[in-house]
Amino acid sequence: MSMSGAGASGEDSLIARYFKPLATDPGAFGLTDDAAILKALGEDIVVTTDAIVEGVHFLSDDPPDTIAKKALRVNLSDLAAKGATPAGFVLTLALRKVDVAKIDETKIDKTWLAAFAGGLGEDAGAFNCPLLGGDTVSTPGPLMVSITAFGRVAPSKMVRRSGAKPGDHVVVTGTIGDAALGLDILTKGKVATALANDATSRDMLIDRYRVPQPRNILAPAIRAHARAAMDVSDGLAGDLAKLCAASGVSAVIDLKSVPLSRAASAALVTNVVGVADIVSGGDDYEILCTVAPAAFEDFVRMAQSAGVAVCSIGIIVDGEPSPKWLDAEGDEMRLSRLSYSHF
Amino acid sequence: MSMSGAGASGEDSLIARYFKPLATDPGAFGLTDDAAILKALGEDIVVTTDAIVEGVHFLSDDPPDTIAKKALRVNLSDLAAKGATPAGFVLTLALRKVDVAKIDETKIDKTWLAAFAGGLGEDAGAFNCPLLGGDTVSTPGPLMVSITAFGRVAPSKMVRRSGAKPGDHVVVTGTIGDAALGLDILTKGKVATALANDATSRDMLIDRYRVPQPRNILAPAIRAHARAAMDVSDGLAGDLAKLCAASGVSAVIDLKSVPLSRAASAALVTNVVGVADIVSGGDDYEILCTVAPAAFEDFVRMAQSAGVAVCSIGIIVDGEPSPKWLDAEGDEMRLSRLSYSHF
Repeated sequence: MSMSGAGASGEDSLIARYFKPLATDPGAFGLTDDAAILKALGEDIVVTTDAIVEGVHFLSDDPPDTIAKKALRVNLSDLAAKGATPAGFVLTLALRKVDVAKIDETKIDKTWLAAFAGGLGEDAGAFNCPLLGGDTVSTPGPLMVSITAFGRVAPSKMVRRSGAKPGDHVVVTGTIGDAALGLDILTKGKVATALANDATSRDMLIDRYRVPQPRNILAPAIRAHARAAMDVSDGLAGDLAKLCAASGVSAVIDLKSVPLSRAASAALVTNVVGVADIVSGGDDYEILCTVAPAAFEDFVRMAQSAGVAVCSIGIIVDGEPSPKWLDAEGDEMRLSRLSYSHF
Repeated sequence: MSMSGAGASGEDSLIARYFKPLATDPGAFGLTDDAAILKALGEDIVVTTDAIVEGVHFLSDDPPDTIAKKALRVNLSDLAAKGATPAGFVLTLALRKVDVAKIDETKIDKTWLAAFAGGLGEDAGAFNCPLLGGDTVSTPGPLMVSITAFGRVAPSKMVRRSGAKPGDHVVVTGTIGDAALGLDILTKGKVATALANDATSRDMLIDRYRVPQPRNILAPAIRAHARAAMDVSDGLAGDLAKLCAASGVSAVIDLKSVPLSRAASAALVTNVVGVADIVSGGDDYEILCTVAPAAFEDFVRMAQSAGVAVCSIGIIVDGEPSPKWLDAEGDEMRLSRLSYSHF
């Protein structure tokens, strides 16, 4: 692990300068050691890791603070879905050689790094998830940010994908599909054309793509009431199929119950996008969970207190793990695809 | 975290197939969930992260099993130096798009992945450090392997860089400089020429570069007797300067005491390489630690029992953290550089 500045090279010192303010946990040792300490405190440590690659998970001209936030938030979203409280993270930052060269030669192009570290620091503070350590490497390839994040739960209380039971409500938070439409706008697709005169909607959708809103505030409700949970990262349809497979169940989903933003709803109604673009688009970073009928009312109340919109979109049933998606007439719809593959 | 195969795409399933056998810890849930659980067991969790990039930390034509082993071992080496017992790791594997395409199109080029996973599995088993989870992404750039590894130590017993005291022995394990000479051979440098007729030495040095030997078996001795410790990854000279800076001390090092392999010694004596190539070359992954005189005999005995060669190369002294390197005549030598910068 080398994000330390002690006795180190110019680059190391520069990096240490920008990242040290984020290392607020005593276990980070101010980024001066080879490793960090995560105190156990009698709880289980939940570990998740997610990487984002330039040109694959974010775009080259995305602002550096949003790249940092996205990298952390996709991990925070996993912790939220598992019912865990954030405890910290480690960062691997693969910087493009050209950027490194700029730092070396001019000693002034610190703008990118400062903005990146600034965004990361804002979120580390906001989500109470301090930087514990990291590694910076140079790469002749694209920028890549890999984060491993840690959370805490009471022993054996992590919420699994595998606990869904027939009769459970299938619940999602927030709205679905916005990020996929935001990516379409950024890549100048059909949504960009349709919303050419609606800057407000465009900005909202782009923001949903660039800066997901992980639902960590909902973790206590997930922990208390969800029988199975995961975050929606690759598309609701595909992720629900994964949850069903892990639980050995199926589901029946009412498409018109899937919560949509006004912008996504308008795009769907006007046939700018199809249903698959919405429910299989990916990058939502909302929570998908199942809640037993007896617990549903309490769950909704806790979500309301937390200020997170939750919505029952269907029900878990017995059967092979291929959820049925019903249209407004109650007929089964075949989705042209289930997931967005970043791979 | 997405290394799961449940209900997933072809690539996901393929990856799950190769990596699932490595996920032997119950907390890995067989790679079927979004996160893993690390049980605390009343100990501190030591966290370290290190990434290796093709063309920077390893070469494109290094065998895939050695790439996997190096990626894990550079992290295991950090755990060893901190006195921690390995507990598991998470893996981020950024595969070149071309490799992914091969997997997609032919469905037969699984050789690379199988060899990589095989090497990783061998080491996960040998070092008792199971795969807990991971993320696979595709990249238009070079192959990159980022690992975050976990270890356990009794509360507050992690060995820091910062505990060295004047009078301590400065100790290194194994031999220094071999890996740097191995890299020189692989890149057809002066050592390659000098050893053109000595395949045995060449193979040994190359092996030292490709597959470091982390000293995890020495962790109990480090924990018991080292006042400060780190692993030697960027060159002994630079890493010692970092340890001294963290401890607020200096050191006087006797160059002729630095342990060398027969091959490295011959290269030095015949002026094929200079001292800086040896002590500032990097990639050693030996342990550098300081041990109080009163504990030294016990430390050496424990190291001997563990079968690890240890060698006192000098002494910690008061002063600015710029260690003095003395030559055979006792004169101070100026090293042309302290570290190998992978950055």
